[in-house]
Amino acid sequence: MTDFSKTRDMFDLPEGVIYLDGNSLGPLPRTAAARVAARMADEWGAMLITAWNKAGWMDDPRRIGDRVGRLVGAAAGTIVMGDTLSIKVHQALASALDLRPDRRVILSDTGNFPSDLYMAQGLIGTIGKGHSLKTVAPEAVIDAITDEVAVVMVTEVDYRTGRKHDMAAIIAKAHAVGALVIWDLAHSAGALPVALTESGVDFAVGCTYKFLNGGPGAPAFIYVHPDLAPNCRPALSGWLGHEAPFAFDPDYRAGGGIDRMRCGTPPVLALAALDAALDVWDEVDMDDLRARSIELSERFIKGVEAACPMLTLVSPRDPAQRGSQVSFAFDDGYAAMQAVIARGVIGDFRAPNIMRFGITPLYISDDDIDRAVAIIADVMTNRLWDDPQYKKHAAVT
Amino acid sequence: MTDFSKTRDMFDLPEGVIYLDGNSLGPLPRTAAARVAARMADEWGAMLITAWNKAGWMDDPRRIGDRVGRLVGAAAGTIVMGDTLSIKVHQALASALDLRPDRRVILSDTGNFPSDLYMAQGLIGTIGKGHSLKTVAPEAVIDAITDEVAVVMVTEVDYRTGRKHDMAAIIAKAHAVGALVIWDLAHSAGALPVALTESGVDFAVGCTYKFLNGGPGAPAFIYVHPDLAPNCRPALSGWLGHEAPFAFDPDYRAGGGIDRMRCGTPPVLALAALDAALDVWDEVDMDDLRARSIELSERFIKGVEAACPMLTLVSPRDPAQRGSQVSFAFDDGYAAMQAVIARGVIGDFRAPNIMRFGITPLYISDDDIDRAVAIIADVMTNRLWDDPQYKKHAAVT
Repeated sequence: MTDFSKTRDMFDLPEGVIYLDGNSLGPLPRTAAARVAARMADEWGAMLITAWNKAGWMDDPRRIGDRVGRLVGAAAGTIVMGDTLSIKVHQALASALDLRPDRRVILSDTGNFPSDLYMAQGLIGTIGKGHSLKTVAPEAVIDAITDEVAVVMVTEVDYRTGRKHDMAAIIAKAHAVGALVIWDLAHSAGALPVALTESGVDFAVGCTYKFLNGGPGAPAFIYVHPDLAPNCRPALSGWLGHEAPFAFDPDYRAGGGIDRMRCGTPPVLALAALDAALDVWDEVDMDDLRARSIELSERFIKGVEAACPMLTLVSPRDPAQRGSQVSFAFDDGYAAMQAVIARGVIGDFRAPNIMRFGITPLYISDDDIDRAVAIIADVMTNRLWDDPQYKKHAAVT
Repeated sequence: MTDFSKTRDMFDLPEGVIYLDGNSLGPLPRTAAARVAARMADEWGAMLITAWNKAGWMDDPRRIGDRVGRLVGAAAGTIVMGDTLSIKVHQALASALDLRPDRRVILSDTGNFPSDLYMAQGLIGTIGKGHSLKTVAPEAVIDAITDEVAVVMVTEVDYRTGRKHDMAAIIAKAHAVGALVIWDLAHSAGALPVALTESGVDFAVGCTYKFLNGGPGAPAFIYVHPDLAPNCRPALSGWLGHEAPFAFDPDYRAGGGIDRMRCGTPPVLALAALDAALDVWDEVDMDDLRARSIELSERFIKGVEAACPMLTLVSPRDPAQRGSQVSFAFDDGYAAMQAVIARGVIGDFRAPNIMRFGITPLYISDDDIDRAVAIIADVMTNRLWDDPQYKKHAAVT
């Protein structure tokens, strides 16, 4: 049984803050700063260039990929770390389109994270062969999967509503008509159990700075099904994806399996922070996490709905259809969220009107939920948000 | 006048090591670990998600881009940081090819860093319109620039030989026939003066972990001429290159100018290390650096050639045609370099037979050069390299 009071002690959380935004940026794991400092002093400083071998830097993208792999049900050796999620989307999408050369449709949904859609638009422009990006409502994805679709590209958990796709059903339908599927796990990895290998997933990508707590701008990951990887042409064919990077051949030859999804020099310092963050996950059983996430989410929904009739739940009411966040719609949601934040409950706002709260059992307790509900109730009931200081939009919330 | 004894004190270098590999991975600046630790504790830990605004994380790629810009002669607002050099090559090349839609030739040279060539090969495959990558000997680049060439893509300083291209001559010839030029400044930034804006450079890309000492896997940079940037279609159109990233529009609209070369979430921790490393450069005049680099290089060449007739200088003898490294060819160069490293002089080896030594005035003195020469002379004269322990190749040296 996972001990969530133990995991809570593994984070440095500011006094007096209830952090319900771990779905955007996870908090600082207690050991992360020391881990990065040690990597800087004892490895970079002391070993200099020789640390690439001696300290294992060159293997980190694979070693840490396996650590992330355990949390998303990926077999060892099928995930590699690096770059950003947007870059990983490009890699997966370019490979998938190559594997379906006679098809021209990329199917996604209107709830997908915009960067995924933008990356598809950019790639379509680069290819210049008339591919199209078709987006439908999240609920309409399954019916839109036809034999014209080359690849279905969806984020498993909707970043605004927290609605969770039925992964098995989408994969089954896609494979039945010969389409591939790319899963963006940004709001899944560390939020709920995922079984990439068992589910027959073709491609998956994700970031590690949300539920996995890897730090701001932490490296992304990519999974490619082991049967597909050897047939993928790497579109971003950087030297570290080469079969023999240090042979300095003039011609690219793709590395075996997932290694071909490596591109440039790995982000060594950021990987150290992520590695420390993953230690917390050694304490966690994903089924326990899911059960606790649902408990906390239900408690939060019940509390907010009872106290704040002006807020409309936009997350699915059925926990089985939800990720690990709870969202409410409110016309003045931006100002309301600022007022809530000013009182120590940190959630975030997503345009046009969504107040979003991440539910993270690693460091959020029943008591946190109850106190958050009380503060939100105070702000909403007493219209504390209706104050000019909360209405000026900043670039990021 | 730059005080190079002062800059030397700004690095943590291991006792007894003479580090001649700062052209591969620069050493640890004394303030870097504390800077990263502060960012982790005081910003990530204490401000959590609000640090994106409060601590200026979101602006770092532009702010730090300007700091790098000063060192390569780029006007403020023309450089942005992010990703890896390989990704930046892709962005520049995709944009350049778009701007020359009627041409199909990418011209490079056989001395270019392989990853640049690989990225071009990958992009050619993605575009699928019959572009070709033509490589000629470095000395033959100018004559090979014809009106069939869409873009010349070269690394200013050859990673093996240290040979420096004539930037002005290549730009003049390319522009005369309507071609664009992409400069890879991996071995230029922090190595010698570069005048991007004044020279009329179209695109430039570079890394910051070599002469700039930003740390292993530090973020890359990209420069686009301000007249070209508004006409560039971003091939890697991630959300942070969008005109309004937090509007979460379904369609990509490129940000103004260089901002459109941003892609995913910035690597915040790595940017802090780089920021600390750039403080050292506030002490440095680039012309002083160049003069000192030449002095040290001449001293090194003279010493090694006098003591080691079995080593053949492969770097240009004329300092004006050289970057800030000195390379010698030797058939057993791998073993010889291992033997030299074992005795405290760290250089590196590049296939097939090159012993490479970076010359970095920020932390290398006349005395270091003399001691390095003595150790190299000992290893070569007494065949100390001829020992099985030095002959087993490791992945990286």
